Amino acid sequence: MAKGASLSGFPEWLPQERAVEQTLIDTLRSVFELHGFQGIETRAVEPGESLLKKGETSKEIYLLSRLQEVGHEADTPLESRLGLHFDLTVPLSRYVIENSGALVFPFKRWQIQKVWRGERPQEGRFREFVQADIDIVGNGELAEHYEVEVPLVMVEALERFREYGLPKATVHVNSRKLSEGFYRALGLTDIDGVLREVDKLDKIGGDEVARLLVSECGASEQQAAACLDLAAITTDDAEDLRARFTSLCATNGLDMDSEEIALALGGLATLGTIISEAAKTRPGAVVADLKIARGLDYYTGSVYETFLDGAEQLGSICSGGRYDNLATQGKKTYPGVGLSIGLSRLLSYLLHTVGAVASRPSPAAVMVAVWNEDNRSVSDEVARNLRARGINTDVAPKAAKIGKQIRHAEQLGIPYVWFPANGDEAASDQVKNIVTGEQVDASAVSWLPDTVYAQQTIVTSESE
Amino acid sequence: MAKGASLSGFPEWLPQERAVEQTLIDTLRSVFELHGFQGIETRAVEPGESLLKKGETSKEIYLLSRLQEVGHEADTPLESRLGLHFDLTVPLSRYVIENSGALVFPFKRWQIQKVWRGERPQEGRFREFVQADIDIVGNGELAEHYEVEVPLVMVEALERFREYGLPKATVHVNSRKLSEGFYRALGLTDIDGVLREVDKLDKIGGDEVARLLVSECGASEQQAAACLDLAAITTDDAEDLRARFTSLCATNGLDMDSEEIALALGGLATLGTIISEAAKTRPGAVVADLKIARGLDYYTGSVYETFLDGAEQLGSICSGGRYDNLATQGKKTYPGVGLSIGLSRLLSYLLHTVGAVASRPSPAAVMVAVWNEDNRSVSDEVARNLRARGINTDVAPKAAKIGKQIRHAEQLGIPYVWFPANGDEAASDQVKNIVTGEQVDASAVSWLPDTVYAQQTIVTSESE
Repeated sequence: MAKGASLSGFPEWLPQERAVEQTLIDTLRSVFELHGFQGIETRAVEPGESLLKKGETSKEIYLLSRLQEVGHEADTPLESRLGLHFDLTVPLSRYVIENSGALVFPFKRWQIQKVWRGERPQEGRFREFVQADIDIVGNGELAEHYEVEVPLVMVEALERFREYGLPKATVHVNSRKLSEGFYRALGLTDIDGVLREVDKLDKIGGDEVARLLVSECGASEQQAAACLDLAAITTDDAEDLRARFTSLCATNGLDMDSEEIALALGGLATLGTIISEAAKTRPGAVVADLKIARGLDYYTGSVYETFLDGAEQLGSICSGGRYDNLATQGKKTYPGVGLSIGLSRLLSYLLHTVGAVASRPSPAAVMVAVWNEDNRSVSDEVARNLRARGINTDVAPKAAKIGKQIRHAEQLGIPYVWFPANGDEAASDQVKNIVTGEQVDASAVSWLPDTVYAQQTIVTSESE
Repeated sequence: MAKGASLSGFPEWLPQERAVEQTLIDTLRSVFELHGFQGIETRAVEPGESLLKKGETSKEIYLLSRLQEVGHEADTPLESRLGLHFDLTVPLSRYVIENSGALVFPFKRWQIQKVWRGERPQEGRFREFVQADIDIVGNGELAEHYEVEVPLVMVEALERFREYGLPKATVHVNSRKLSEGFYRALGLTDIDGVLREVDKLDKIGGDEVARLLVSECGASEQQAAACLDLAAITTDDAEDLRARFTSLCATNGLDMDSEEIALALGGLATLGTIISEAAKTRPGAVVADLKIARGLDYYTGSVYETFLDGAEQLGSICSGGRYDNLATQGKKTYPGVGLSIGLSRLLSYLLHTVGAVASRPSPAAVMVAVWNEDNRSVSDEVARNLRARGINTDVAPKAAKIGKQIRHAEQLGIPYVWFPANGDEAASDQVKNIVTGEQVDASAVSWLPDTVYAQQTIVTSESE
């Protein structure tokens, strides 16, 4: 991290680290567009009104005031003040409503932007970070197959990150309908409460969750045990999923023809399609995991969380789900399904744990040496010819001794130093690969760098 | 502009407009890296202390408060509060100091980010907009040839924008040293005052400026006339520049051996190098224009403004200059020279006046039709094969009637519709170019789109 991360929670990167972030962003964009997603950006600010809607996150908002307003902030009600967006979903919802007439539905959009959360920085949390989102938003309706598509797009993107040292990612999927239908069939009514307790499973363990289900959600011990049995189901095989769910229903004597179980079976079917379609192309990348509960109080269909092999301590690096009321406008509703990558956290892991870094600070492949300042234009001309053919080229800052010029190129990681023809001393232009030491005659209008040295790439060093 | 530009001063773009912005950013980045500039991003916030330094802009700052601090904002002195950056220069200066040990000097950096100004939106001014900056920062010293390089890089970038309909851009250059040396040689002492009045030339005319020079800056009528004569010099020829300046000095009886004129001649020499080097490769793109005064109170060497042919009402679209104290740390100084493009204003001009727009809303070149939902995986498989070869591909949202599916592709501007083999009806996969109507047998593992239809491009329609 840049030493200058002098403001806690606001990460900044050195050029060689920033190049990694830029590569991640380029990769994501390329995968998203490969799937026909349209890129948008939204303004950084939303009215307090919209930001305060989502109860829990409201604590984390940054509100703005113009300098002239300082001291009079209280004159403006919170709802009318502007705040920085804390995610890209609230802005998407507004954008869709405001531009519904100009968009084609289902609207597939990608969006990679910074978001801000005014929380106290702790446990390495960022106050400013980059999110990378895809969502598919329908007008009135949204086919279920999009719940299959969205995680597969993210898996494809995360697979590409493995080249930069990211461990294998697995998307864990659950279904609000499946959980809710099953709980209701058991006779439970406080569905959000049950989900909240089940969500604590990894932290406090099954015994404690069972105790809380009884004490907080009015469950019997049998009901609590059934909830835990459901949460224990995880598989990447649709047949297995169906069999285990049916067996669990039988064990608990549930009526398979009831409305509640019909709801659950609807969720089960979607979940089955997601994992079996995923298994066709990316075996093991998407699993049904019925203990996933976070966000189920908000989402209405599938819900996704994503974990990295061996980096579970990072938590979910890519989360989302389906929400049937992403946006509403009068009688119109816009259901959506989406996933969001917390890119800054991922980048931080890649930089600091994996040791990823750009192969060199400078994007240039060539530095043209300067024999003397009066003839700088000779070196500029070489640079112009190289650049005209797409070769990133720098020119030495000073007509210093050649050894010093070469050291400057070394410091910037520039692999080639170009020596323009210099009267009697050198009849022809020459280029030296300062990594291998090879030096050859060359012409600026035809020479090409070796592919391996042409571009800044991402390399991984030892982890810290 | 997106209809949803519901918040004055915070522009948002429809996907087809955003694609233009993304293309401009990609182009800039590519040109900057071609010249060996390193990309960085800085956090959006700076301490009030840094933001309030630059006197004039202080009115335009957005300050932040966390929701918990609402009502207690006054407890924190302005200097300690965080505010959104209003340019990319204040953050660069801090970044250079904080990371000086990890950077290679001269540090050539590009940076494209949003900035915010809390001013009342008027005359179409934006409160949130994108700036694209390049700067070269030295450690202790910075060679003059960088004052030549920086405008040439920007000219190269702006030349590329002509493909999207931008008029020819001309960089106007002046020199603080030249103006100051000349004014002092005339016997004037309130240099900043003179610069401030000369800056009004285009708005209020020569007579009024002369009057103000006399009344506000203590100039005699002769001195005022000489200032206006200097401001009238504009040329792209270094010889001509030198001749006219020398003649003006003679007319005013100035001592060519004085310290003051030595200062002016230093500036003149740099200016001459800039325009003659520029003329070699881009004739007419860079001119000396001695009436450019804005920012001369801040900059210490060259100063640049850039105007578009036929769009002078936009004002300068790319401004900057050399400042010998970009950053200081104890006894260390970091001189810099840089230029900044106001990208959002340029984009707005391209979209609304030139009529630039992406050739289609969707980045996809192909939409795969779906014969029936039970066989959607057949269409998904086609899409997978096309994407594996880098062809952006969407799949029809619904197994609707084929006419309806084609209409969906049309709405998205997707040029090709793919029909997977469908039992007896169609023995082979076929692909139809819905623009030309041509339909051919095709294989998803080998077919390629015509180049002209492969990518989303920028087109220009009639201007409004």
